[in-house]
Amino acid sequence: MSDIEIPESHPRYQSLLTRHRIEAGVEKGITSKQGLIAQGRGEAFDYLLGERTIPSADEAERVSAAYLLLAEHPVISVNGNVAALCPEEMVELAEAVDADLEVNLFNRTEERMEAIVSHLREHGADEVKGLTADGRIPGLDHERAKVDADGIGSADVVVVPLEDGDRAEALGEMGKTELVIDLNPMSRSAQVATVPIVDNIMRAVPNMTKHARDLKGASREELEAIIDAFDADEALAAAEKAIRSGDDT
Amino acid sequence: MSDIEIPESHPRYQSLLTRHRIEAGVEKGITSKQGLIAQGRGEAFDYLLGERTIPSADEAERVSAAYLLLAEHPVISVNGNVAALCPEEMVELAEAVDADLEVNLFNRTEERMEAIVSHLREHGADEVKGLTADGRIPGLDHERAKVDADGIGSADVVVVPLEDGDRAEALGEMGKTELVIDLNPMSRSAQVATVPIVDNIMRAVPNMTKHARDLKGASREELEAIIDAFDADEALAAAEKAIRSGDDT
Repeated sequence: MSDIEIPESHPRYQSLLTRHRIEAGVEKGITSKQGLIAQGRGEAFDYLLGERTIPSADEAERVSAAYLLLAEHPVISVNGNVAALCPEEMVELAEAVDADLEVNLFNRTEERMEAIVSHLREHGADEVKGLTADGRIPGLDHERAKVDADGIGSADVVVVPLEDGDRAEALGEMGKTELVIDLNPMSRSAQVATVPIVDNIMRAVPNMTKHARDLKGASREELEAIIDAFDADEALAAAEKAIRSGDDT
Repeated sequence: MSDIEIPESHPRYQSLLTRHRIEAGVEKGITSKQGLIAQGRGEAFDYLLGERTIPSADEAERVSAAYLLLAEHPVISVNGNVAALCPEEMVELAEAVDADLEVNLFNRTEERMEAIVSHLREHGADEVKGLTADGRIPGLDHERAKVDADGIGSADVVVVPLEDGDRAEALGEMGKTELVIDLNPMSRSAQVATVPIVDNIMRAVPNMTKHARDLKGASREELEAIIDAFDADEALAAAEKAIRSGDDT
């Protein structure tokens, strides 16, 4: 994906690419005002983290790949910032683990839903769920509860990147395995996750895809062993330590 | 200023008010996309700081008040986020220390300049500088260098809240005393400041005004003693420690 004219060797390439994509997302009606503010919060946490994938995050990404490969019906939830930041990378992850993509917005409008579905299709997605909205997440306001019954509604494992805390909590209460990508380890979304991935989504998603490809030939027992060795509280503590102290944990 | 219908006793009052003002700033053409992202970065640092004025910031605000009271020609620089977040508070500070207000934008357009000048007038400002733009800050691109010759151009003390690093550095090289409000103590703006104020602007500005009123009767010697006792590096270290460790320093 070469959508800006900056060499990949440029020291600020990733940061400039991110900025470019999020602004293009605004032009396309994909990224909201709240999305821009959320992007800034993420930038600050990533800055404190040293703009790198810390070892505990790499492990969380591998564990997430194992969960996705073992899932009966994995679904990847996509909101405005996710679609703006890494549409192609999300399509690749969905293909690698045979998951559905579902657009799911906190501030849902038909225009944004359709803009995001089109954007994902332009980046290689075949089927994109989210427009049917015939299912509900219990415990949330009507508009914020909408999901597809045959998508997130019936999923056993859900990837929820950059998600609102209330919704992450409500999905957890439905008994779903939640793989949450969030740069703030103290956020409610990260706290309620089965697997909290404290990493920049633009690094996390390609790395989850890489791990999924590496683990493709692994047995159920091997995948379960990877999952069993993971401790979400330890991963959160390591991420907070890295952010607070700058240490490489 | 009661511009949202939430009681001031609400635990998230300040945060909701901030959010409301920044969004209203977008509607009015005052806050830019970059401004929304910057707002998010600030939120993250403030969150780590515990959303409070740490003691070293309170001291920096008192020292800033002393500098402003001693200044020959103090000017308060106002950009889009500053105008959106605390227009009335800035007007009050300017009155308390007899300073000029000057609109100064990183992404300067005539429309935004005028929208911000009107917004400040609606919130009580008489004279607002920035539209003449007959002065230049040496060492910056043409558009980013523009200031009023009888405003920032000839100021001895400048309050520069939420400022870009290049501009903060260039202003410092002009020999001006810079009072910088910035929630990231590692930012270049904070690093080059005469007085770095690591605090949320919505807490910092009213507190600077309060200190200025308290110090109004103080002698030149007393004000100079307050200034001499301040160490910018110590203040930055205390702020970084508070952010990194969560300690009350």
